[in-house]
Amino acid sequence: MKVNLMHGAGGEVMGELLSVITKFENNNAGGIGLESLDDGAVIPVGDQKIVFTTDSHVVHPIFFPGGDIGRIAVSGTVNDLAMMGGRPIALSCAMVIQEGFDVADLERIVASMDAALGEVGASIVTGDTKVLERGSLDGIVINTAGIGVANHVVRDSGLLPGDVIISSGTLGDHGLAIMAHREGFDLGEQIRSDVAPLWGMVEKALAAGDIHAMKDPTRGGFANAINEMASKAGVHVEIDEEALPIRTSVRSAAAMLGIDPLEVANEGKTIMGVAADDAEAVLRALRSHKYGKDAAIIGRVTEGSGVVMKTKIGGERFIEAPIGDPVPRVC
Amino acid sequence: MKVNLMHGAGGEVMGELLSVITKFENNNAGGIGLESLDDGAVIPVGDQKIVFTTDSHVVHPIFFPGGDIGRIAVSGTVNDLAMMGGRPIALSCAMVIQEGFDVADLERIVASMDAALGEVGASIVTGDTKVLERGSLDGIVINTAGIGVANHVVRDSGLLPGDVIISSGTLGDHGLAIMAHREGFDLGEQIRSDVAPLWGMVEKALAAGDIHAMKDPTRGGFANAINEMASKAGVHVEIDEEALPIRTSVRSAAAMLGIDPLEVANEGKTIMGVAADDAEAVLRALRSHKYGKDAAIIGRVTEGSGVVMKTKIGGERFIEAPIGDPVPRVC
Repeated sequence: MKVNLMHGAGGEVMGELLSVITKFENNNAGGIGLESLDDGAVIPVGDQKIVFTTDSHVVHPIFFPGGDIGRIAVSGTVNDLAMMGGRPIALSCAMVIQEGFDVADLERIVASMDAALGEVGASIVTGDTKVLERGSLDGIVINTAGIGVANHVVRDSGLLPGDVIISSGTLGDHGLAIMAHREGFDLGEQIRSDVAPLWGMVEKALAAGDIHAMKDPTRGGFANAINEMASKAGVHVEIDEEALPIRTSVRSAAAMLGIDPLEVANEGKTIMGVAADDAEAVLRALRSHKYGKDAAIIGRVTEGSGVVMKTKIGGERFIEAPIGDPVPRVC
Repeated sequence: MKVNLMHGAGGEVMGELLSVITKFENNNAGGIGLESLDDGAVIPVGDQKIVFTTDSHVVHPIFFPGGDIGRIAVSGTVNDLAMMGGRPIALSCAMVIQEGFDVADLERIVASMDAALGEVGASIVTGDTKVLERGSLDGIVINTAGIGVANHVVRDSGLLPGDVIISSGTLGDHGLAIMAHREGFDLGEQIRSDVAPLWGMVEKALAAGDIHAMKDPTRGGFANAINEMASKAGVHVEIDEEALPIRTSVRSAAAMLGIDPLEVANEGKTIMGVAADDAEAVLRALRSHKYGKDAAIIGRVTEGSGVVMKTKIGGERFIEAPIGDPVPRVC
């Protein structure tokens, strides 16, 4: 078997490849390990719970409306830590760079990473740099791994019947920004990536109520994230289409491109399952932060399985996990 | 300015690029940070000292005499942790894979990583996978970041006048194995990479005596490592050529290729500065481990600066830091 593009697209097909790549017998350091396929691992060290995660970033183009590969590299890892309840402390930065890459672009990328770090009080503490000869790599790959500390670990598998589903904001912005920009759409510049480091917002939400489950809807988008959350928890999720926050410009671009905005990556959003009694308090906390001002209650959890959307015209349709994110090199 | 191959070759020229890439204001989490350019960072968490490091691996070919990219990916990170005195606990594994890559090769790589992890009791606990379209990447890039716990942190800057310099074994094996294999030398198969995870050996050495400084001579080889150690500590190092452990086959291949075996990468060695009174005990500890049986005292530290080698014929010559490792994609 050969690796194909869908193996890296964050959807159903990716599972085939993951079954090979995760076949480690040495896969757990005493906490939450590789087998859980969560946003990060948890390692008990002394009396602390260390959260640990990694992401390699290959987004193309490297500069796009609303962000760049540097902002994604920091935000992606900060957000994976935050999804586990971890305050981001320290990140690593390993760059693989194509020979001939412009050093001025590198400077912009480093400055952008630094700004994102500053937003959440984290630091790049260690790094590595490799240069590949022309023809061996197109552009740059930036890997960031991250260490956080969690007082209370949150899982992506913790949904409970009775929970309310909250989205911290509009869906589809990042994936459509990348696609519209690539296609040279006139409306391209109106659609900006949502890429942002979310710890500050998540910290407020964690303090406001009982969050049972959290996940950031990156590759494969909301459709993939909510299906993974429902399936891991063994519950049914009902989504209210009318409540889904999606920008008009994103809807238009998605329609023109024939892409479902629920299936493309977001880089500055979280989907939460919250105890019903705490939903309003968590919503207020999210909305009090600049990255959460469009937060909305979008559904609820019941017993059963699968994810169903109540449509605007009163019907119902399944939201399925996509085969894979329709946007290649989205992050 | 454009990035060139020497910017990633671990020698003097790499400093130019590092001055750009390390320009983070957010660069330290309260312990040892990016500014120290050591083998890893140290982060205080509760009452523990967490060691944190990262490496992206691009070795070509991915299978070579004595090892493969998987064994390097685990060993490189385990060794960076060990060089700081850190017991390796948990590693991340982020793969960027070219479309069309053979899944059977991936299985071999994962099995090799798993075996190396098993040698030192560490685990892969979190991961990420991206697939790049044909033409965007040649082969596979594997990033591993690692977390260790140190009772006593060792720096690469700790050499003191009076210290003895110890090499844990023969020098130049990895770089020459890669080059000889690429060139199709008949003696290629006699030269095997030394790639190995060193924590078990380092742990014995740390228990045996007072180790003031430690570094693994990877890109740029021994010549680069010993110059960095001398320069960071502000001391002079005198190396005894006759004491340097170099295999005859490595010497021959190096001569044929016009490469200095002291300037190429090792992937299973450490260079230590040890208090003179403890040197014999540390040497015995190293030799009691399978990866240290060729350990030798190779020099001593005095006041001053620079690294000089006393040659076999009674002369002296400077050992300079190389411009860069002469073997591209060596690790």
